[in-house]
Amino acid sequence: MKRLVPAIALAAGALAALPAAAQFQKPEDAVRYRQSVMFLQGQHMARLGAMASGRVPFDAKVAQENAAILDVIDHMPFVAFVDGTDKGNTRARPEIWAERAKFDAAAAKLQDEVAKLNVAAKSGNFDQFKAAVGAVGAACKACHDSYQRPAN
Amino acid sequence: MKRLVPAIALAAGALAALPAAAQFQKPEDAVRYRQSVMFLQGQHMARLGAMASGRVPFDAKVAQENAAILDVIDHMPFVAFVDGTDKGNTRARPEIWAERAKFDAAAAKLQDEVAKLNVAAKSGNFDQFKAAVGAVGAACKACHDSYQRPAN
Repeated sequence: MKRLVPAIALAAGALAALPAAAQFQKPEDAVRYRQSVMFLQGQHMARLGAMASGRVPFDAKVAQENAAILDVIDHMPFVAFVDGTDKGNTRARPEIWAERAKFDAAAAKLQDEVAKLNVAAKSGNFDQFKAAVGAVGAACKACHDSYQRPAN
Repeated sequence: MKRLVPAIALAAGALAALPAAAQFQKPEDAVRYRQSVMFLQGQHMARLGAMASGRVPFDAKVAQENAAILDVIDHMPFVAFVDGTDKGNTRARPEIWAERAKFDAAAAKLQDEVAKLNVAAKSGNFDQFKAAVGAVGAACKACHDSYQRPAN
């Protein structure tokens, strides 16, 4: 697995560096791309939340593993909020594009909180882990409250 | 972005180490998880294929970036082919579970070819890049031909 280390270093830079609009052939592809990553994030966050809330016994190894995965994929979706993708099968609000700097700051807040969760999970301390999961959940919710329409 | 390096090292191990069945609350979640990753892989592979075939001008930086991303996410989907997820909204053939060792070998073949593509993309040599994209495409196709039902 060591060969993945340089790969993700480049991948992480890539996600920030690529001109977003050049990446998707159709607006629908950008929408499905971000929805796919959001679903994956939700799956890993659900596993972390179940342990943080006590619904599932705390397992430090599982917590670390899921936090590490989340800490990688949370860099993927935001490049897909390209211009012209506020229509169709999307719950994205137009405010994403109208106040892009605020949206980008909310994305960065999520990434920062997930990075902290990754550290907390590695500590193996349940209280730290629980607090960090709560902070990530709050970052998710803040962004969804502002920028995501309710489900039908 | 440097902080992502240890994260992905752990994440990559995590994807191999977690007991698969424990990760998904419902069979439908496992199906959607693997379909989400497959879509993301398809997006990045399409960008690489467009350059390899000459439909889009070769850009070494873009090639490297997309190969690096693919080299990370190609480790994610296979854990989601858990027992009992051969029904419903899936094109997965029952042979995946009936001949699991062969399926796992096909997944490993893909990961090996993508690792080689990642190296080739870094070389900046178009001929090497083109050959490596072809090999990844062949690995995708071999697995789909054997283990994926045609789209309706």
